[in-house]
Amino acid sequence: MTKDFRWFDPTELVFGPGKLNTLHTLEMPGKKALLVISDGKSARANGSLARTEEQLRMAGVEVVLFDRVGPNPEKPVVEAGARLARAQGCDMVVALGGGSVMDAAKVMAAFAVMPGDDLWDYAPGATGRRKPLDIPSLPTIMITTSAGTGSEVDSWGVITNPKTREKVGIGRVRHMFPVYAIVDPELMVTVPPKFTAYQGFDALFHNMEGYISNAANFMGDMIQESAIEKIGAYLERAVKDGSDLEARANVAYANTMGGYSMIITGTTSEHGMEHAMSAYHTALPHGAGLIMISLEYFRYFIQKHVCDERFVRMARALGRRDAEKPEELLDALADLQRACGVDDLKMSDYGITPEELPKFVQNAKTVMAPQFTKDRYPMTDEDCEEIYRRSFR
Amino acid sequence: MTKDFRWFDPTELVFGPGKLNTLHTLEMPGKKALLVISDGKSARANGSLARTEEQLRMAGVEVVLFDRVGPNPEKPVVEAGARLARAQGCDMVVALGGGSVMDAAKVMAAFAVMPGDDLWDYAPGATGRRKPLDIPSLPTIMITTSAGTGSEVDSWGVITNPKTREKVGIGRVRHMFPVYAIVDPELMVTVPPKFTAYQGFDALFHNMEGYISNAANFMGDMIQESAIEKIGAYLERAVKDGSDLEARANVAYANTMGGYSMIITGTTSEHGMEHAMSAYHTALPHGAGLIMISLEYFRYFIQKHVCDERFVRMARALGRRDAEKPEELLDALADLQRACGVDDLKMSDYGITPEELPKFVQNAKTVMAPQFTKDRYPMTDEDCEEIYRRSFR
Ligand SMILES: [Zn+2]
Ligand SMILES: [Zn+2]
Repeated sequence: MTKDFRWFDPTELVFGPGKLNTLHTLEMPGKKALLVISDGKSARANGSLARTEEQLRMAGVEVVLFDRVGPNPEKPVVEAGARLARAQGCDMVVALGGGSVMDAAKVMAAFAVMPGDDLWDYAPGATGRRKPLDIPSLPTIMITTSAGTGSEVDSWGVITNPKTREKVGIGRVRHMFPVYAIVDPELMVTVPPKFTAYQGFDALFHNMEGYISNAANFMGDMIQESAIEKIGAYLERAVKDGSDLEARANVAYANTMGGYSMIITGTTSEHGMEHAMSAYHTALPHGAGLIMISLEYFRYFIQKHVCDERFVRMARALGRRDAEKPEELLDALADLQRACGVDDLKMSDYGITPEELPKFVQNAKTVMAPQFTKDRYPMTDEDCEEIYRRSFR
Repeated sequence: MTKDFRWFDPTELVFGPGKLNTLHTLEMPGKKALLVISDGKSARANGSLARTEEQLRMAGVEVVLFDRVGPNPEKPVVEAGARLARAQGCDMVVALGGGSVMDAAKVMAAFAVMPGDDLWDYAPGATGRRKPLDIPSLPTIMITTSAGTGSEVDSWGVITNPKTREKVGIGRVRHMFPVYAIVDPELMVTVPPKFTAYQGFDALFHNMEGYISNAANFMGDMIQESAIEKIGAYLERAVKDGSDLEARANVAYANTMGGYSMIITGTTSEHGMEHAMSAYHTALPHGAGLIMISLEYFRYFIQKHVCDERFVRMARALGRRDAEKPEELLDALADLQRACGVDDLKMSDYGITPEELPKFVQNAKTVMAPQFTKDRYPMTDEDCEEIYRRSFR
C-alpha cells in the first residue's frame, strides 16, 4: 500500500500568466547567457524573444543567441551550442522554447563545462561512452513556451544521435536541475491547435504512465491525479480556443506536474516505444507518436489486470465520474482524442511502414530499456510488436 | 481562477517505513554532527537515538549530543545548542524528534555560524532586531518522529522568547532548507494516542488554512486536498491503533504535505491565534490549542461566505462525500475530533482564564501579524476575541 519514494527537485518554479515579465526581478545566476531558441520563427514572430532579451538586459545579463534547435534535438546541434557557450565565455544558459529547446539547452549547459568535443562521451546508454558529468553544469533558466514535456523542472535532456538513431536521456544529475522554471501560460496562446493537442497528450501520458508504473507512490499519485483531471477538463478548451487563458493555465500546470511525475515515478514503456518511432522519423512529433499507440498500449495493460482500480480512477479523473470498469479508461481516452481532433493520426502519414515495426521493437528495448522495467507486467518483444501492429494505420 | 505561485523546496525527501535504516547511504554534508533530541525519554527508550547514532557512525560522522529541547522550544535552549555546535566544531546538525526539535535544530544550525550570542538579533518580528541570517547555515538533516508540523521540509523554526512571550518564526531563507528530510512512519508507532491526535490535527489545519487562504493556488490546492483526504481517512485509525503502519504512513504523508502547504500558501490567523495561547501557556500542545479554537474559527469564515465551495470540497475530502453546504465542514471536523477523542479539550484545563483572552488577541495580531494578512476576510480585534470567547471552556 505504501510505496517508498524519494523526492528531490531544487528548481524554483515561477508559475502564472505574465510571469515572463518578472524574470528581471529574479536573482540571476550569471552575467552572460547563451539564449537558446528553436530554428523556427515563432519566438521572433510572437515577440517572446525580444521580451526575454529585454528582461535579461534589465537584469544586467549579456546575451549570446543560439537559434538552431530543431524538433527532436540532435547531437551536433547540442555540441554546436556548447561550443558557442565556451567560445563566448557564457556563464549561464537560458532556454526559451518547448521541450526540445529546453532539453538541448540543459545538455549544452552541462556539456559546455566538460572536456571533449563529442557529446556521446557522456551519453549513459546505448552506444554512449558513459562518462560521468561530474563538473557542475552552467546554471540554467527554463522559459517554457509549450505545455507538454515538463522539461522545465527536470535535470536531463533527450538528445538524438542521427548516426546511430538513438534517443538518449543525458543528465539526471543534481547539478543539471534548472535554477528557475518560468511557466507563463500567456506564452502558450500562440501554439497552434494541433500542437496544443500533441503536447497536451504528451503531458497526459507522462502522468498516466507514472500512475500505472510499478514505482507508483503517494506523492506520484497526488501529482498525477491532479494533472490527469486538469487535462481531462481543459485540454479540449485549449485546443479549440488557444486564447482561453484559464484552459492554457490548467494545461500548463498539468504539464509541469508531468515533469514532476517523471522524476518521482518515471514513464513506462509507452515512452520507450514512441522514442523509437520518432528516432527513425524525426518529423513525427513526440506527442503525435504517443497518441498513435496509446489506446492499444493501455488496452494491453488493462487486459493483464495489473492495476484495475488505477485505470478506473484515471477514467474518473478524465471525466467519466461514474466509471467502474478499467476499460472505461479507453473510452475516456478515445473521447478526448476525438474532442481534440487527434483521433485520426496515421503512422503511414509520417512514412512509417509495417516492415519497420520489428526494428522499432529492438530500438525501444535496447535504447529505452530502463522504461520497460517500470511496467507492472513485463512486455515481451512479441507483445511490443503486437501493440505497434494494432496501432498501425 | 488562476492564482500565481512560486514554489521552491530543495530538501530531498526520503519517505517510507524503515527509511531511517538508509540514512548511512546518503551523501553526508559534514563530518561532525550536533545531534539534537528532546529533553524527554522517548528517543532513548524506543531505540531511535541509538539507531541514528549508529547510522551516522556508519556514514563516518562523529556525533555531539544535545538533549535539552522542550516543547515550544525557547530562545536560551537554541542559544545553548548553537554554542555547543560552535565549541565542538560541528559542521552539520541532525534533528531526531518532532516539530520542536526540528525547529530548534534548524535555528541552531543557522545561528551557530552567525556572530553574537543573542538569538533575538535575528528574530524578524516583534522585539527582534531583524538582522539578516546572511551566512549559509550549517547543513541539516531532519528525522521526524511525529506527524504534525511538516517542519522537516521547511526553512525556519518557531522559537519562543520566554521573557517577552513572543513566538516567532526565524529563518525563511534559502540556505535553511534541510538537505534531507527522513519521514519514516515506523518511528511514529510509539507516539501516544493523544499526541497522535494533536499532531494530526495540526497537520490538518496547516492544509485547511492554506486551502482557504487568499494565497490559494493550483499547487497548494493539489497538496492540501490530498492531505485533507488522508487525514480524514486515516487519522482515527492511527489514534486508535498506533501500530497501524498504513495509517501512520498516510498521516505522515499528510504531515509533510502540510509543510509544503505552509511554504506555498502559508497558514492563516488560526495559527496566529493558537501561537498566542501556547506562548503564554507553554504546557499547551500546539495541536491541542488549534483544536480548541478550530470549530469557531472555521465557522467565522463560513459565515462570511468567503469561499463556500472550498468548504464544501474540504467536507467531501474529510469523508462527507455528498456534502453540498459549507457548514457540513464543521460537522465533518467535529466528527473527526470526536472519533479521535479530542472533542472535550478545555482551555481552562491548561490554566487559561477568560481574562487573558484580550491579551491573546493583542499578542496574536502583533507577533503573528503576517498570518492575519492571509485571511480572505480581515479579522477585527473584536472578531478575534469573539472566536476565543466562544471557544472557551
Ligand atoms: Zn513525453
Ligand atoms: Zn501548526
